[in-house]
Amino acid sequence: MSKSNFFEDFSLGQKIVHAVPRTISAGDASLYLALTGDRRPLFCSQTFASHLGYEDMPVNDMLVFHVAFGKTVQDISLNAIANLGYADVRFIKPVFLGDTIRCESTVIGIKENSSKKNGIVYVQSIAYNQYNEHVLCWQRWVMIPKSNQDAQVADSFVPEIRDFVDPKSISVGSNIVIKNFDFGSTGSSKRWSDYDVGQTIDHTHGITIDDATHTMAANLYQNNARVHFDAYLMGQTAFKKRLVYGGHIISLCNVIGFQGMENALNIVAINSGIHCNPSFAGDTIYAKTIILEKNNMQGRTDLGLLRLRLVGIKNQKPSSLQSIMQENSTTHYRDNVVLDLDYTVTIPKGN
Amino acid sequence: MSKSNFFEDFSLGQKIVHAVPRTISAGDASLYLALTGDRRPLFCSQTFASHLGYEDMPVNDMLVFHVAFGKTVQDISLNAIANLGYADVRFIKPVFLGDTIRCESTVIGIKENSSKKNGIVYVQSIAYNQYNEHVLCWQRWVMIPKSNQDAQVADSFVPEIRDFVDPKSISVGSNIVIKNFDFGSTGSSKRWSDYDVGQTIDHTHGITIDDATHTMAANLYQNNARVHFDAYLMGQTAFKKRLVYGGHIISLCNVIGFQGMENALNIVAINSGIHCNPSFAGDTIYAKTIILEKNNMQGRTDLGLLRLRLVGIKNQKPSSLQSIMQENSTTHYRDNVVLDLDYTVTIPKGN
Amino acid sequence: MSKSNFFEDFSLGQKIVHAVPRTISAGDASLYLALTGDRRPLFCSQTFASHLGYEDMPVNDMLVFHVAFGKTVQDISLNAIANLGYADVRFIKPVFLGDTIRCESTVIGIKENSSKKNGIVYVQSIAYNQYNEHVLCWQRWVMIPKSNQDAQVADSFVPEIRDFVDPKSISVGSNIVIKNFDFGSTGSSKRWSDYDVGQTIDHTHGITIDDATHTMAANLYQNNARVHFDAYLMGQTAFKKRLVYGGHIISLCNVIGFQGMENALNIVAINSGIHCNPSFAGDTIYAKTIILEKNNMQGRTDLGLLRLRLVGIKNQKPSSLQSIMQENSTTHYRDNVVLDLDYTVTIPKGN
Repeated sequence: MSKSNFFEDFSLGQKIVHAVPRTISAGDASLYLALTGDRRPLFCSQTFASHLGYEDMPVNDMLVFHVAFGKTVQDISLNAIANLGYADVRFIKPVFLGDTIRCESTVIGIKENSSKKNGIVYVQSIAYNQYNEHVLCWQRWVMIPKSNQDAQVADSFVPEIRDFVDPKSISVGSNIVIKNFDFGSTGSSKRWSDYDVGQTIDHTHGITIDDATHTMAANLYQNNARVHFDAYLMGQTAFKKRLVYGGHIISLCNVIGFQGMENALNIVAINSGIHCNPSFAGDTIYAKTIILEKNNMQGRTDLGLLRLRLVGIKNQKPSSLQSIMQENSTTHYRDNVVLDLDYTVTIPKGN
Repeated sequence: MSKSNFFEDFSLGQKIVHAVPRTISAGDASLYLALTGDRRPLFCSQTFASHLGYEDMPVNDMLVFHVAFGKTVQDISLNAIANLGYADVRFIKPVFLGDTIRCESTVIGIKENSSKKNGIVYVQSIAYNQYNEHVLCWQRWVMIPKSNQDAQVADSFVPEIRDFVDPKSISVGSNIVIKNFDFGSTGSSKRWSDYDVGQTIDHTHGITIDDATHTMAANLYQNNARVHFDAYLMGQTAFKKRLVYGGHIISLCNVIGFQGMENALNIVAINSGIHCNPSFAGDTIYAKTIILEKNNMQGRTDLGLLRLRLVGIKNQKPSSLQSIMQENSTTHYRDNVVLDLDYTVTIPKGN
Repeated sequence: MSKSNFFEDFSLGQKIVHAVPRTISAGDASLYLALTGDRRPLFCSQTFASHLGYEDMPVNDMLVFHVAFGKTVQDISLNAIANLGYADVRFIKPVFLGDTIRCESTVIGIKENSSKKNGIVYVQSIAYNQYNEHVLCWQRWVMIPKSNQDAQVADSFVPEIRDFVDPKSISVGSNIVIKNFDFGSTGSSKRWSDYDVGQTIDHTHGITIDDATHTMAANLYQNNARVHFDAYLMGQTAFKKRLVYGGHIISLCNVIGFQGMENALNIVAINSGIHCNPSFAGDTIYAKTIILEKNNMQGRTDLGLLRLRLVGIKNQKPSSLQSIMQENSTTHYRDNVVLDLDYTVTIPKGN
């Protein structure tokens, strides 16, 4: 499937093999770091990773997500009007430098809109490593126009979408040994027990986006959506300029959120994610983290789970943001809120 | 030879050893991908390359070209008034990650212009790997000013330049096994037999250039021509701004041309190339491919050759370009045509 | 220590373990090259390094410096009003691709300013590899505000700062074999004996800085000083825009200084360094080198030392700069002088 698809090209149960498997190298890891400012030690320090029992350098979980997600763009969302959301993102196995990632999707839902001009397609995607092991899976749904307005679309099925990934289903390898966790390497001694549900952290770091950095990031992920690259095309739209890949905003917010969450080890799930407003070159991104839940981890006393709400804000300090939603609304985000992400991380309990 | 040369510094038969051998690493491959958006699976997927019989990850052919070419800039073209053309570019052996490339040139032609203020120098360049094997060779000719207007230049010889590389001279390693070619990895099932001579493909992807990306690309290739880096200097010229390295335009057009040519495996020759007009930051590059010739490959039934004309266009969709040349002209390109490249690729025949 | 520190948080003799150890990979080396344009063969050619006796690819000395320095920013200078200077920077052991660098600092001086609103903190920092060997050490001093104006600061001690690193203390590994130095790889045959004390080299190459490149460089070094990244914040300051990391200017000037100093092998010491004026995106950097001293090296007849003054200038050709200091001043730099660096390099004597 090398042509991008329109709404009528999808059918329920359809299986799509996405093109271009990708070997993730140390070069990709360095670029991720240079393009985002990431400082999580698990992904930049061989000694830190080895002490925890990793046999090799793991690849940043968000880099794995972006590479896997990028493969689906050509087939799923190149023609999308809107990326409506994603859910049930589960990071199943670590990916190591040198691993090769490929991706397949299945259409799990399809619903024509009442206008009959477009519809919503729901897909379940799975990323595999070179051993055909599942490393990552997720669901997302996008609004896609018809190419031919008269095309008949027979299927209509809206799948049930999980509100969040069940903490009981989350595990990390038994080889991971938290008693060797080096708190000097993260710069913080805060453990699972030091966070309270409802607590808010207004991160102070801000990152201004440039066209070169967000397009290099999208290129690195081989995400070839035209809106990120083609200023001539975008100049003819209401946006007037290239749109930043939403996943780049997730990465920037995650990097900003390192401050105060230094010992969060792995992202194990993204429960849901909404790109509330678009971002452009010149925008400065800030973020705040709200602790939503604290959970134990099946079979482990050394690691706990934190379910976090990561809110991305542009061109305003988080501490001065009065509310995430517009006044008197529970559904409309303020204009400068760019991300509302619900995700789950592991964090040491004891030691 | 560490000083840049003027016209009178060259002589027929002169041999130049270019400085700074370069080991090409996975980091370079990642940067090439991030700076161009390349998606050719041979160069980003270990599994794809292994299935075809490559013992290791090959380096993108255009990255090899740029690195080799970059070495010649200091000695050959730092003072050039114009890069007039190149021809007979042959990709002889694959370069693998970890290989070290060095480059030598021989002056094969020299001709003073009638003004006596400058002249044309023709060079044959050869890139070697660390085993002293030829990996790439090419010819190019540049117009270079004299430093001393009174300098006498005795030599005058204009070499014969091949119109195109003889398809019979092109080979790929006998270890390359096309029966294992994975068409799922490229996203297209189109083979050699699916293309027709004269056929035109208007690629839809467009890439806007930023100053940071084109200068990083030139840096990556250690191409130190001042026109790409020095905005202060360029502000005093008619261009007013930094000039994009012409090779970067070739790469962008090649990446854009992936759509519709997904199974083109190797670039085996560049028959001729002209940078018709300059490009600058802010320009959006598009491309069209015209199938010029179809040829068999000596000793192989599984691979064929396509000779392609790759036309780069800026700030206009290829589908709306009425002609490549100006009206009533066979020699003058339209103002927004930036590249006219004639090159040859391998592509699977059967399987 | 994960919070950034104010003046009253420091005390004499205090030892600080900096967060986030960092494995330096081939990806980092490629990015350094792409962001600066470096062409020093020791750091980009496996064959050049092997011929000299290096067992593996060494990491560019300035990249090591920036990575090590970057670790100290969070604890030492995130709140700094000014980076006043550094000295006694010694490159003790080569760092190889794959090595992991961590960093510790000791407060060696502290002095409250008469205003009692801020003070100067002097630190000695040491970078270690994964074998706990010293690879780099340096001193620097910064002016830091108090958080609480009423805080009492008892300590007051100003350490003696060395004017320059004693040439007698400088060594390179005995495994380095200069008789195999390949002058063809550097493009110059100039040895130690070809330079004269007092000689000035006006380098002609200029490099224009873009926001994307200087922020990627700071990210690569995990230097998280807000002034480099946050245009929203900087828009509210007198600078109006993001400030370029001073170390990036050192790198650019070092790269520009390759021309004419092609055979300078290692940077072995930075004797002192001053960032005379800030740089911003859009500035074009030039440089001149002045030979300050020529010294022999203990126990070696094949390598000599050159002590160099590297002067960085923005938006003006070095050849047209009449003086480094303002007229009738010995302490005030001209407005477009951005760097005054005193450093020592090794260079082949014979062969």
